[in-house]
Amino acid sequence: MKKINIGLVGFGTIGTGVVRALKERNSLLTKRSGMQLVLKRICDKDITQRKTVNVDRSILTKNIDDILNDKEIDIVIELVGGIHPAKEIISEALKKGKHVVTANKALLAECGLELFRLSNSQKRDIYFEASVGGGIPIIRSLKEGLVSNKFAAIYGIVNGTSNFILTQMSQQGISFKDALRDAQKRGFAEKKPTLDIEGFDSAHKLIVLAQIAFGKFVKLSDIFVEGISRISLDDIKYATELGLVIKLLAIAKKQKDELELRVHPTMISKQHLLASVDGAFNAIHLSTDMVGDLLLYGPGAGQNPTASAVISDVVSLAEKVNSSSMFVPFNFEQTGGRIRRLRKIDQISTRFYIRFMAIDKPGVLAKISGVLGKYNISIASVSQKERRRAKIVPVVIVTHEAKERAMRLALERLNKLAIVRESVAIRMEET
Amino acid sequence: MKKINIGLVGFGTIGTGVVRALKERNSLLTKRSGMQLVLKRICDKDITQRKTVNVDRSILTKNIDDILNDKEIDIVIELVGGIHPAKEIISEALKKGKHVVTANKALLAECGLELFRLSNSQKRDIYFEASVGGGIPIIRSLKEGLVSNKFAAIYGIVNGTSNFILTQMSQQGISFKDALRDAQKRGFAEKKPTLDIEGFDSAHKLIVLAQIAFGKFVKLSDIFVEGISRISLDDIKYATELGLVIKLLAIAKKQKDELELRVHPTMISKQHLLASVDGAFNAIHLSTDMVGDLLLYGPGAGQNPTASAVISDVVSLAEKVNSSSMFVPFNFEQTGGRIRRLRKIDQISTRFYIRFMAIDKPGVLAKISGVLGKYNISIASVSQKERRRAKIVPVVIVTHEAKERAMRLALERLNKLAIVRESVAIRMEET
Repeated sequence: MKKINIGLVGFGTIGTGVVRALKERNSLLTKRSGMQLVLKRICDKDITQRKTVNVDRSILTKNIDDILNDKEIDIVIELVGGIHPAKEIISEALKKGKHVVTANKALLAECGLELFRLSNSQKRDIYFEASVGGGIPIIRSLKEGLVSNKFAAIYGIVNGTSNFILTQMSQQGISFKDALRDAQKRGFAEKKPTLDIEGFDSAHKLIVLAQIAFGKFVKLSDIFVEGISRISLDDIKYATELGLVIKLLAIAKKQKDELELRVHPTMISKQHLLASVDGAFNAIHLSTDMVGDLLLYGPGAGQNPTASAVISDVVSLAEKVNSSSMFVPFNFEQTGGRIRRLRKIDQISTRFYIRFMAIDKPGVLAKISGVLGKYNISIASVSQKERRRAKIVPVVIVTHEAKERAMRLALERLNKLAIVRESVAIRMEET
Repeated sequence: MKKINIGLVGFGTIGTGVVRALKERNSLLTKRSGMQLVLKRICDKDITQRKTVNVDRSILTKNIDDILNDKEIDIVIELVGGIHPAKEIISEALKKGKHVVTANKALLAECGLELFRLSNSQKRDIYFEASVGGGIPIIRSLKEGLVSNKFAAIYGIVNGTSNFILTQMSQQGISFKDALRDAQKRGFAEKKPTLDIEGFDSAHKLIVLAQIAFGKFVKLSDIFVEGISRISLDDIKYATELGLVIKLLAIAKKQKDELELRVHPTMISKQHLLASVDGAFNAIHLSTDMVGDLLLYGPGAGQNPTASAVISDVVSLAEKVNSSSMFVPFNFEQTGGRIRRLRKIDQISTRFYIRFMAIDKPGVLAKISGVLGKYNISIASVSQKERRRAKIVPVVIVTHEAKERAMRLALERLNKLAIVRESVAIRMEET
């Protein structure tokens, strides 16, 4: 039986899950794959820390060269995270003839093109199932299962932390702050939660998905990113009354030769499958030209789901070991059809939910809708909600499709009015 | 660039979709896969019929040997359907060193073990993404994406016809008969719909899923199969009142070393993701030990979705062409853990929804619940619905978990009572 040697770099939470699974499931994996997977070396900067899985101490090292220079190691798993030295480790591994498995969405988002080109020239593959959607097999579905499809749109709930917080707010009726604190207590949110709650983690994942689906390598700065920290319980309540749900969506849409990519809180119909994705779960909704609409749903993070994805890549790459003569790279560049330009957020049109906190006196609605009208924003429905604070009432407006730029200018103007104390705008999607 | 020659057997609806996609998407597929896919030969018993795609007539043949004996053909796509001669075609293709793609769930359900063993001994693969879930990449998700997982349960809506009919009944308030007629008009149901509406198509697909997930090869006769033809509008209405939805589910559950497989109309909570799967869509819900719960959703049939799945297999196999020396088969046998026995339906326990049409007189509820009690069937709720026919009223009972055998015996007894005119029992699942 063919023996495949693996080197693991990064012995943290996910690494521990990978090591445990490779150990405890070795015979299952051998049976299913017809190969023997051997974890030959583990590298981490701290190898003294006690882990929840027992490993032979002789395979632990602090020296990355013990993996990179080991000619018997066929596959390197990078679970270091961040840009440096993860990028250097992956590059060196490819150059030394090793296939690479990584879960590093930030790195792929920032340096994907460079790394995939190196992969092609070295005839060694980079697999990254764990980078998006945790245990959901979304990457191989895009690359392989849907290989003949052109993609029209991707809508993803790809950040479990944000989705958990929004779900708690909605189901428990608690504020964003309280929901965040709860998520931190339960280990669903980091102490420094910015990357998750401000949408950047979702944006990294969107970039990775767009690389595969559209063959386009986009920078984070090209993407409009807005997080969930300004979402209030009021807006969740009014959304519910409108039959809508607020989700942090990563959105990619291709129209003709233009691609738009954005991450923001989005109101969708509660009938939509994505609306039922609760808690820390993730889901990716795809619109493709041959298959039509698809949805993949599952746990978007966590030790075991992520380890499962990493190991699926190891098994797939194990089949490729020693087959460099027939190396067939997945071509990531411009395979989704020509893309002439990225749409800037200002050029995008959506429907909007807007809430104003306005002084309750005659003519307020007329005043507000008058300003919106001047910017060609047409109103689908208006409702003035119950008074709660003296003289300040919430006014909720749902618009027809409106240009982002027009909405921004209209809100700037409205916010200057004496009668308007606060305004919130949330984009809507029909999907 | 590597050229891969393909032979297609069966030029019907799906075949036409495959031919069109291979033609119109050739450059996309070449770019993405790094290989050139050439459709070298098409075999069908009728090659005179006009198709909606243009093909060079010289590649058409009525003689299967033109494909089987062509040494340049690397991959054979079998879209003939049925057991014979599909089985012989696949067997011969494997023996002649060709990889095989098939969409034939009936064949895999009946002869899977034999064919996969032949595949292993010939070091040529059989891929079958299109056999379950149409365009949903469920097979490669099970085989590859979740390769390290043990499966606890599968719940599948895998027959689009039945799901379309149930959705129409529920949303339009029309009878089973009318919904079936509507489905036939729209091309969602065959003129002879038995295979779909009586659950046998779902059972074939369940057998295929169980082969991968549990490594167990089961006969159709080992599976309890009940279709949707007895589902009435009343039961759909009462289900709605209880917050439940009726779906035709294909269910596989492994508990310790026992496996249960069954197909039947099932009431599930309307909160469950599967409850939102409407129309001709399919979805498969998986419970796995590493990842947890997953759901894959998409079009379960149709020319283009199915062709997409077929082509994904062609591309994956194209990578394997000429690599027979490193052929690594997916081991299908008993890789899901030891299974000592299949549970017979009589040994299974579920909750039940039961509806009786009973004569409306004092003591009816007491009588019915008394009989249920004698069979150790405990009642969670009872409601006597409005009268509609003189003196005959619907009585709806939801039970706690009850043994299938006990329920069957209790119903036999109850049906003999003079006060009971009709009874319907539908299993419930929490999933």
